[in-house]
Amino acid sequence: MIKVGIAGYGNLGKGAEKAVLAAPDMELVGIFTRRNPSSINTVSGCPVYSLNDVEQFKDDIDVMILCGGSASDLPEQTPALAALFNVVDSFDTHARIPEHFEAVNDAAQKAEKTAAISIGWDPGLFSLNRLISESILPDGASYTFWGRGVSQGHSDAIRRIEGVVDARQYTVPVPEAIEAARSGNRPELSTREKHTRECYVVVEEGADKAAIEEAIKMMPNYFSDYDTTVTFISQEELDANHKELPHGGSVLRSGTTGDKHHLIEYSLTLDSNPEFTASVLTAVARAIARMNAEGLTGAKTIFDIPASYLSPLSAQELRAHLL
Amino acid sequence: MIKVGIAGYGNLGKGAEKAVLAAPDMELVGIFTRRNPSSINTVSGCPVYSLNDVEQFKDDIDVMILCGGSASDLPEQTPALAALFNVVDSFDTHARIPEHFEAVNDAAQKAEKTAAISIGWDPGLFSLNRLISESILPDGASYTFWGRGVSQGHSDAIRRIEGVVDARQYTVPVPEAIEAARSGNRPELSTREKHTRECYVVVEEGADKAAIEEAIKMMPNYFSDYDTTVTFISQEELDANHKELPHGGSVLRSGTTGDKHHLIEYSLTLDSNPEFTASVLTAVARAIARMNAEGLTGAKTIFDIPASYLSPLSAQELRAHLL
Repeated sequence: MIKVGIAGYGNLGKGAEKAVLAAPDMELVGIFTRRNPSSINTVSGCPVYSLNDVEQFKDDIDVMILCGGSASDLPEQTPALAALFNVVDSFDTHARIPEHFEAVNDAAQKAEKTAAISIGWDPGLFSLNRLISESILPDGASYTFWGRGVSQGHSDAIRRIEGVVDARQYTVPVPEAIEAARSGNRPELSTREKHTRECYVVVEEGADKAAIEEAIKMMPNYFSDYDTTVTFISQEELDANHKELPHGGSVLRSGTTGDKHHLIEYSLTLDSNPEFTASVLTAVARAIARMNAEGLTGAKTIFDIPASYLSPLSAQELRAHLL
Repeated sequence: MIKVGIAGYGNLGKGAEKAVLAAPDMELVGIFTRRNPSSINTVSGCPVYSLNDVEQFKDDIDVMILCGGSASDLPEQTPALAALFNVVDSFDTHARIPEHFEAVNDAAQKAEKTAAISIGWDPGLFSLNRLISESILPDGASYTFWGRGVSQGHSDAIRRIEGVVDARQYTVPVPEAIEAARSGNRPELSTREKHTRECYVVVEEGADKAAIEEAIKMMPNYFSDYDTTVTFISQEELDANHKELPHGGSVLRSGTTGDKHHLIEYSLTLDSNPEFTASVLTAVARAIARMNAEGLTGAKTIFDIPASYLSPLSAQELRAHLL
């Protein structure tokens, strides 16, 4: 049995708890939190410890699944915990991946630990498909579409506007853009052509809705490059219809070998973004524990992990039944 | 530059020639054939040698792409050539993969060579997706659909019937079955429910068409478990409309985490089955040459190869641009 710890107990941590308990070859040692452990009742009833005491568990945990956020938690936590444990994180700030990799690699190499970073579906499974597809069809064009799904970053950005009480933002791929990407014509698609953004917003009584709508639509980086729709709804309606966290998307490679066209398409339709992401982290946790046992140390990404390590089945079973 | 040889010069070998020439980091040393080399004019003008002389090239080739057939060529050729070269093959007789793996592994280990077997899209990319998806969503059901595409084995089977001059068989997935697989209800789908078979047949003048149609539809293993349609056409029509070798298909995983449903779908739409398969073999040839240079010897499958090895880009470039 692989002994697993989980650091952080938000949506992602709860998803990891579920995934570890569903794995036939894993044992959940405990949840580690920065909050007061006695304030947390876990879904499974598994023990909760203070993250301050984590070093005491150094010899009791084969791999730690890190479920903090990319903005401020993981840049500190992943290197610190990689000095003590084999770890897996979901660091998803694409532009800062190279520096995160270096920091984690230094810590893990020194401690002879193995650390997988940027695991999930994007970065993660989508990255893997981009890499494999481009390697097979070097003459081609790649497209990534996200959604329909809730972007928590965009929802948070709306909530920071004065007069907004609550908000949910859906990223929606444009069907015509997906069809164009599939066509074999290799269109260049602008940001605006690829996705639209739908915002469901709850405002304070008497708030200036026109000003709030304008503030959303003009927001740089988040909304100004997109066709954005804003719908004002009540808190009751938001709670009833927009509390789930679905997501998904697709990666397409349209390429040719001479005059022959080929299309590779990978798509995800997820009822729960955090639960699916946690399921990917958990499969990779298995791989990382095994790679460490074989002496493969340092930082790894999804690009460095042979798929056989993800499965609880033996190499012989995989060849006989899944190849 | 990775120095590449190609053994066999049918449709697959011609596809490999194209793919190797399109690779920025590969050099094509030559084609090796069992036929008289002087009888072959290659598309690229690259040299052709007798397969009998292949041992002379032992030190001039980093990896050999094997383009023979699975029925009789590869069970002999892959172990024999793995004793001399790093090799990649597309052995696709699923039931015989374990014994083929053992034979190739023995030869490669003794010679300190690296040998990838069963590379292509199924076995190959589809297998990889089955493995990854099942590892992430252990509570779920997997589905593989093939087509719409030409099955050369089924076309050959029709041609062996007395009175048949030529034939093309298309394997066609049933759209309702794909929708059912996507639904989240995890239906059990029978062979007949998943695919239909369309046959285009040219017969001798005066042949008994009713008897031929009956012989096709009743043929065990190939057609008797399917809803099969037979259309008699002229050789001219077959040559005009059915000479290409398109194929494709999809692998679906419908799984849940508790009450949340998730769907993973991987699909291929290929204008040319042999050219795409050869493109996969070529990307894996790159991986195998590199793995051997790092001392990773013996037989490998797509399950054992980290994706980073497939790309001509460095690990740093991949992390910065594709992760």
